[in-house]
Amino acid sequence: MMRIAWLFTLFILNSAKPIKDSESCGYESCNKVDPSKINVHLVPHSHDDVGWLKTVDQYYYGAKNYIQPAGVQHIIGSVVQALQKDSTRRFIQVETAFFWQWWQDQPEKTKEMTRQLVNRGRLEIVNAAWSMNDEAAAHYHSIIDQFTWGLKRINDTLGKCGRPKIGWQIDPFGHSKEMASIFSQIGYEGVFFARLDYRDSKKRHLNKDLELIWQGSSDLGNFSNIFTGVLYDFYTAPAYFCWDILCGDRPIIDNEKSFDYNVNTVVHEFADYVTKGIEYYKTNNLLITMGGDFTYQAAEMYFTNMDKLIAGFKKYRPDINVLYSTPSCYLKAVNEEGRIKNIKFQLKTDDFFPYASGIHSYWTGYFTSRPNSKRFERQGNNLLQVMKQTTSFAKYGHNLNFENNLIPLKEVMGIMQHHDAITGTEKQHVAQDYVRLLTAAVNTAEEDVDSIILNILKKTDNADDAKIKFSSCLMANVSHCEKSNLDRFTVVVYNPLSRYVNHYVRLPVNGNSYTIVGPDGNVNYEILPTIADFSYVDSITPSKKELVFVAENLPPLGLKYFYIQMSKSTRKKHKIVKQTRFGNNVSQMSKSTRKKHKIVKQTRFGNNNSGFTIDKVTGLLSSVTLNGVTIELSQNFMFYNGANGETFRASGAYIFRPANTTPTAASFAKTITYTTYATDIVDEVHQIFNNWIRQIIRVYKNENYIEFDWLVGPIALINDLGVEVVTRFVTKRLSNGVFYTDSNGKQMVKRIRNFREMYTYTNEEPISGNYYPITSCILLKDGGSDNCSQGDNLEIAVLNDRAQGGSSLEDGQMELMIHRRLLNDDNFGVGEPLNEIEFNEGVVVRGQHYLTFGRKNTCSKSSVKSAAANQRDIAQRKLLSPWVFVGDATSNQHSLQNLQAKLNFQFSGLATALPNNNTNDKATILLRLEHIFSKDEDNVLSQPATLNIGNLFPLFNIINIEEMSLAAHMPKIEIEKMTWNSFIPATPSREVRSTDLNIDLEPMEIRTFIVEVVPKTRNFV
Amino acid sequence: MMRIAWLFTLFILNSAKPIKDSESCGYESCNKVDPSKINVHLVPHSHDDVGWLKTVDQYYYGAKNYIQPAGVQHIIGSVVQALQKDSTRRFIQVETAFFWQWWQDQPEKTKEMTRQLVNRGRLEIVNAAWSMNDEAAAHYHSIIDQFTWGLKRINDTLGKCGRPKIGWQIDPFGHSKEMASIFSQIGYEGVFFARLDYRDSKKRHLNKDLELIWQGSSDLGNFSNIFTGVLYDFYTAPAYFCWDILCGDRPIIDNEKSFDYNVNTVVHEFADYVTKGIEYYKTNNLLITMGGDFTYQAAEMYFTNMDKLIAGFKKYRPDINVLYSTPSCYLKAVNEEGRIKNIKFQLKTDDFFPYASGIHSYWTGYFTSRPNSKRFERQGNNLLQVMKQTTSFAKYGHNLNFENNLIPLKEVMGIMQHHDAITGTEKQHVAQDYVRLLTAAVNTAEEDVDSIILNILKKTDNADDAKIKFSSCLMANVSHCEKSNLDRFTVVVYNPLSRYVNHYVRLPVNGNSYTIVGPDGNVNYEILPTIADFSYVDSITPSKKELVFVAENLPPLGLKYFYIQMSKSTRKKHKIVKQTRFGNNVSQMSKSTRKKHKIVKQTRFGNNNSGFTIDKVTGLLSSVTLNGVTIELSQNFMFYNGANGETFRASGAYIFRPANTTPTAASFAKTITYTTYATDIVDEVHQIFNNWIRQIIRVYKNENYIEFDWLVGPIALINDLGVEVVTRFVTKRLSNGVFYTDSNGKQMVKRIRNFREMYTYTNEEPISGNYYPITSCILLKDGGSDNCSQGDNLEIAVLNDRAQGGSSLEDGQMELMIHRRLLNDDNFGVGEPLNEIEFNEGVVVRGQHYLTFGRKNTCSKSSVKSAAANQRDIAQRKLLSPWVFVGDATSNQHSLQNLQAKLNFQFSGLATALPNNNTNDKATILLRLEHIFSKDEDNVLSQPATLNIGNLFPLFNIINIEEMSLAAHMPKIEIEKMTWNSFIPATPSREVRSTDLNIDLEPMEIRTFIVEVVPKTRNFV
Repeated sequence: MMRIAWLFTLFILNSAKPIKDSESCGYESCNKVDPSKINVHLVPHSHDDVGWLKTVDQYYYGAKNYIQPAGVQHIIGSVVQALQKDSTRRFIQVETAFFWQWWQDQPEKTKEMTRQLVNRGRLEIVNAAWSMNDEAAAHYHSIIDQFTWGLKRINDTLGKCGRPKIGWQIDPFGHSKEMASIFSQIGYEGVFFARLDYRDSKKRHLNKDLELIWQGSSDLGNFSNIFTGVLYDFYTAPAYFCWDILCGDRPIIDNEKSFDYNVNTVVHEFADYVTKGIEYYKTNNLLITMGGDFTYQAAEMYFTNMDKLIAGFKKYRPDINVLYSTPSCYLKAVNEEGRIKNIKFQLKTDDFFPYASGIHSYWTGYFTSRPNSKRFERQGNNLLQVMKQTTSFAKYGHNLNFENNLIPLKEVMGIMQHHDAITGTEKQHVAQDYVRLLTAAVNTAEEDVDSIILNILKKTDNADDAKIKFSSCLMANVSHCEKSNLDRFTVVVYNPLSRYVNHYVRLPVNGNSYTIVGPDGNVNYEILPTIADFSYVDSITPSKKELVFVAENLPPLGLKYFYIQMSKSTRKKHKIVKQTRFGNNVSQMSKSTRKKHKIVKQTRFGNNNSGFTIDKVTGLLSSVTLNGVTIELSQNFMFYNGANGETFRASGAYIFRPANTTPTAASFAKTITYTTYATDIVDEVHQIFNNWIRQIIRVYKNENYIEFDWLVGPIALINDLGVEVVTRFVTKRLSNGVFYTDSNGKQMVKRIRNFREMYTYTNEEPISGNYYPITSCILLKDGGSDNCSQGDNLEIAVLNDRAQGGSSLEDGQMELMIHRRLLNDDNFGVGEPLNEIEFNEGVVVRGQHYLTFGRKNTCSKSSVKSAAANQRDIAQRKLLSPWVFVGDATSNQHSLQNLQAKLNFQFSGLATALPNNNTNDKATILLRLEHIFSKDEDNVLSQPATLNIGNLFPLFNIINIEEMSLAAHMPKIEIEKMTWNSFIPATPSREVRSTDLNIDLEPMEIRTFIVEVVPKTRNFV
Repeated sequence: MMRIAWLFTLFILNSAKPIKDSESCGYESCNKVDPSKINVHLVPHSHDDVGWLKTVDQYYYGAKNYIQPAGVQHIIGSVVQALQKDSTRRFIQVETAFFWQWWQDQPEKTKEMTRQLVNRGRLEIVNAAWSMNDEAAAHYHSIIDQFTWGLKRINDTLGKCGRPKIGWQIDPFGHSKEMASIFSQIGYEGVFFARLDYRDSKKRHLNKDLELIWQGSSDLGNFSNIFTGVLYDFYTAPAYFCWDILCGDRPIIDNEKSFDYNVNTVVHEFADYVTKGIEYYKTNNLLITMGGDFTYQAAEMYFTNMDKLIAGFKKYRPDINVLYSTPSCYLKAVNEEGRIKNIKFQLKTDDFFPYASGIHSYWTGYFTSRPNSKRFERQGNNLLQVMKQTTSFAKYGHNLNFENNLIPLKEVMGIMQHHDAITGTEKQHVAQDYVRLLTAAVNTAEEDVDSIILNILKKTDNADDAKIKFSSCLMANVSHCEKSNLDRFTVVVYNPLSRYVNHYVRLPVNGNSYTIVGPDGNVNYEILPTIADFSYVDSITPSKKELVFVAENLPPLGLKYFYIQMSKSTRKKHKIVKQTRFGNNVSQMSKSTRKKHKIVKQTRFGNNNSGFTIDKVTGLLSSVTLNGVTIELSQNFMFYNGANGETFRASGAYIFRPANTTPTAASFAKTITYTTYATDIVDEVHQIFNNWIRQIIRVYKNENYIEFDWLVGPIALINDLGVEVVTRFVTKRLSNGVFYTDSNGKQMVKRIRNFREMYTYTNEEPISGNYYPITSCILLKDGGSDNCSQGDNLEIAVLNDRAQGGSSLEDGQMELMIHRRLLNDDNFGVGEPLNEIEFNEGVVVRGQHYLTFGRKNTCSKSSVKSAAANQRDIAQRKLLSPWVFVGDATSNQHSLQNLQAKLNFQFSGLATALPNNNTNDKATILLRLEHIFSKDEDNVLSQPATLNIGNLFPLFNIINIEEMSLAAHMPKIEIEKMTWNSFIPATPSREVRSTDLNIDLEPMEIRTFIVEVVPKTRNFV
């Protein structure tokens, strides 16, 4: 049996308004090009950030226009009105978050008018995801989710003619392979963007390579190809031709009697721009974006002038055909001309990271900016996946609709992917609003958890007194959880993965002794001190201790229920608790918080299979053992000082630009203070590097990784310079300048220090120029390649719990930037230095790294697990981590006895019987199956796999199955793609595969199905 | 026979699109008020200046938005789109200059959509004149013309439902009686405005007198009544409730899920504003203007928020009925409630001048600002009336259409009436554009003058070689006229009045001796030196001399033709030319320009009937004789220094605020330099007051006035203070604090120094607080009243050639401000000091005053003509002055003999046979008849008059006659007016009079007819 990881999602799909047969929303509705002329495709568009300088609502409603005069409701509204006026006018609508909000506000008449415009190709939906997501920090799960959600809304409102063909990533600060692959898999024809490395851009201009065929995945090959167009001159209108209310450019005055008549002048200047631009492209088509940030609030103004421009060209420059167009119409024209003239487009297989807009402007700071926000987003995703599953299970047989409470979370998660949200490049007040939105969405999502848990677990219909209000302990990272501090509480640990996993539950507590009862009886636990005293956090009283126990063998898509009672007895004896405290007393931890443990001297932690040692003198990590293999490995914190911008660019929210190339060690002294704890469940070393950096290095028994649980902040500002903190892992491995970073958490991409595949790298910024986005993983290979007989043939990986920037600046070394506090704005529009303040101090960040290693798959040391097997396993378990809900069990009715009488303490969505089903309706389930391994990553696990989904759902029959696009918005069979001539190795076209219940999956493939199911207990004709 | 002055105008009326019967564009389309609640009438509007900080075209197209973000095409366009969206929305369209330009740019679909909106009362046309005219400096001829023109365009485009009911003078800086009277006579129901004296405003707020019945004319009585509403709180939206793209006010956020939901807050704050406002009005209706300067470029934005406000009130404050409304719907509601509750409104019979917005802010500077522009406008009007008449005559029998070339002039004259055009309160570049527009329009209007003159005068069809290109000598005021400097030229003097007049033609020449042949043979002339050397004017070579001759007995609506040839002989001997030069030699006049005249000592000029004396020592005027009566009268120039704004307000384009209350004499020394000239035609004294002020005092033989021809500038700046020059006429008459000023050139209004009729005047600004607009005339009466036995029972009047500010600051004294040069902006938006520069110097201004006097009509000295008879006569002859066209006759074919052979040298539109008429069509003529005297102004002339118009046109029959509104836009019989309860003396309602050919006219009445005529030579059944 192949090992298959899969995501399970359930939607009840609303029916989309059917499209009238008479409409032609395809390419037939394009305004005509003239092959004998230069065709100038004016593409009117508005780039509407889902939050940046203002919050989402402020942008939508046009509030706080003194910050930025922008109100998206007016953009869409006035565009729809302006498009009525002339049938040749075109516009593209991009962000579905805004579109959907607008749609809901409209009367039916306007909705119908909008549908007509879409049906006639006058309003073209492009991109259509909830937001225009970032491509560096966003995880592919969330990207697919936000496309699925955005496209569902488009389907619901606009139907078939709303289906986009074009990815429109005009603003994100670099572009990932995985994004290209996703676009291709959703069924898009092409993607356009504006930002790429300035050297790359220059070279592409010169070589007419601004348009290319991008292969997004070597695993999927040609199935991941997508036409990629780089806009000629950014995504704004040509200088002096922005006719928006936000611009001051001269309007066209076409009254010949007017003293100010200027059609001739304007046309000739525009023609100059066009004839210059056309030289950079291979066909006679030129796409010119007419718009910019939040343009078209008064759309008629822009269109009026473009109408006149087009008329002016007919009069003064009939040799140039200027037309209203859309990216898809442009693409069609390029494709046709390309086929006729047999034009070959460049093939590209790497990505567009990092993005440098100039010599000293590497956009590698935002990989890390606002680390708390980046982490909260990951938690939101984790909860969302958990809730989608649990609500589906709970619903069955109860005719209840819990899904509505998930809508805010789906929406906010879409918003969070925005390229000024998860990137941390928004203003401070906007960042706070994102947190507020996400917090509220989480609260709403959790509103029904009591009923959901009850429905899933109840043994009888008469179990209402076993209902308990559950919630997540979102502040457990600062040792606060109200419910886990009660005398009696319950814990539900839900596993969203489709396989059995163990999960180490950690809860802030104040008690010393507990009784924990799970489905399998009493459970062992430990109590350990927290990493620090979090009492600076307003309005909470943090706990000083953490209760740790393992929720073992959590069933796939299932949960275990634990009942926890504080013991009146003296605290339970742990088998071994060892504590050592060394080094200088820089700790700010209150003495009272430290429990007395037996003090022993020890530098080895964990066991012979998984463990680590620390250097007794320095207190730093010195080696790591995993799978019985030990390697030398040290870890330390250091920081760069951000350039203040006195010369060239400052380090800021977008830009990472260190003032010096050698970072300073965070501890200053060569030794650090540390305390050690050894228990049956986990061994920990608590390190204190300085007043504002501490870390726990931790190894759980029977785990295949070492955990680094760090706490950084408030960063001390030194010499009025910004501080950018990195964690650095140093080995003696010879990595040959090569390292690997993930692409949105899916594929791994090879990086070579001081080198770019497609253009000549110049090393003016040796640090930030080598930084890449680490969405989930950075790794080194012995010798830098898959060749064997290099060192120990090992791969060493560091996984993170949120997106960060990182690099391998020297062989054997990996660093990840974990926190930034800067005092200067980098002048890309935010207008604020990235200096996050909370509780009147610089913000504190806590996070985890997971270090693992294994053999290269290509090498034969079969006794050691492959690195990929470890790394993919850990990554999944951290991203879709078992989720811990805590409930208040203090009321009398919530005695252990009563709960045990009324509830099952365990459930599996796959293996366990669902509640009796009284539903008459067929249900429609959206099912995604994913092969999470790349070709050759693991000898076994990377093989193509087949899964019979008939076995997946024990309690219902599948009566219909249809394969869909990756975003589930259209049947896969309806996806039609143009063909392109490129330098692509001939790959046989993979046929659309049969959709019987045996689903085969190639490496890295994700397949999406809509499955109709009926309960097995009913008979169907 | 009564003496009737009348204006003759001819239009061929385009048929207006008929209105469908199903439409209800009257009050029925108003959104409903609820009598049991406070009704808040939201009136969405945009105040679109026809030039101010930007030119008309810049405003229309939205050019130079860095000056002001304003593009009117987008306002109307986006409003029409927004009104589609919801049938309850309303908007008012005001300025027809912009509306017409927009209309022409629209496709038929949009036009039809707009008509529908108008037909359904959703887009209401108010005011509808070409511009929102000023009420101080604009002349009633031009006001009526620009309403006629604007309303004609509305008729043409929108038909009946476009007919306005409301005057909307929200921005003009003070309000005239005559304007009220005009509104009433056009058939409007009410007028609204925002600006009135701050004390008046306060009192009206307190006394609930913000709404009143204004009787515009005591002559017309109740027929000139109009409901007048003062807006509660200026014409902008309430503070914090402007939802325009130009405003930064918070939008309404009505998504209850949004953190920023604010409907409740916004509603309650708006309700506070409403409940405060309603206290100032007598009914439960409150009109709230939602808009401002150039708002609604993105109309949907504003409407979206108002929609939400209205919905919010329904939810949170159902006791207040907030509705979209229009001024007419508001008025209807007020009227209905007023009738039900028997509410009585105040009666007002005076005017709203001057306007003080605050203690030190009297808007009396603009009465004079930009005097050259104010004069050019009057010339434009003069030419327009001339051309309307001549084109009509020339057309008859020739099937030619000369009218189209008058359209630009009609339009520009409408623009010139705008309250930032003729007022001189625009930016300098805009002022230049007005001049450019008017110059171009004049040139266009004159394009066909050659054909017109030929058609009118030719004796045979074979007269083409007698065609001569004619043009006006617009630069004669700087002694430049190219054609009159030729050896041979022709002069056409056209008289636009309906009676015989003499006209003194003055032309710049270089020759010494001429032969002038007119229709009656040779004509006498004189040659006199010019007032100054104008060689500083770029690109001209000014003449040093002026040829003067009288065109006698010019026929009504007729012309005389003169042929002028320079003589080779020595210059003709004048009977007497006397010259004296006295005083200090401050003259800058070149010696060579002074002719040698026989030098005699003389201080008396003119003759015993009309003449004047100057004081030999001072050189200043000392007495004036008219109609044989001599009075002591001196005249001098003085200047105020403008306050620089260091404390309170500066003197500026709007504001007159002298730094001192006593002006400085312009001459400094007590004596001035002067030169005297006496001829058979005219006697002149050329005075030099200082380096930048000179004047000719002039008396023509057989004229009933003394002419003051002054030249001021470049004003010398003294002590870095602005200078405001006045001419002051001083008599010993006891005028008792009383003086009279005209209202837009029609009625005379009594003024009492330091007093206001309807509120308590406080005298913080004793000079400017007593300034009033002198559009055409200021006068004093002996004793200050019509009582006889006061002094000599005389009235003394000074008439001007353009609008000015003026006052009588002491008894017996009248002053007129003639020029202003200021160094500070007065901070009402222009953003520039009024410091006109031309040819690198302060601008030079030349103008005339005409002094006349006579007995009060009430007194019995019958040997002396009444003052009014003189004054009305002169005013008419100066406003509708005979117009002089000059033609180049140097070509051989243009010999005197040939021209005499081919052309009549005389023509009258009334008395003379029109050319043979070959036209088959009926023609439609717009005819206005006016009684130019007020009740009791003259014993004889003020009597009601009857005119049989059957006799007016000797060559055609009137087959139909229909009386129209004053603006000719609708039959008078269709005018329906609401009745109001006010403190009005019961006047019997004058019935609509029979429209036979005997037209009776009451004093001051203007009646407008559309007359259908056919040639008399044809027989009609």
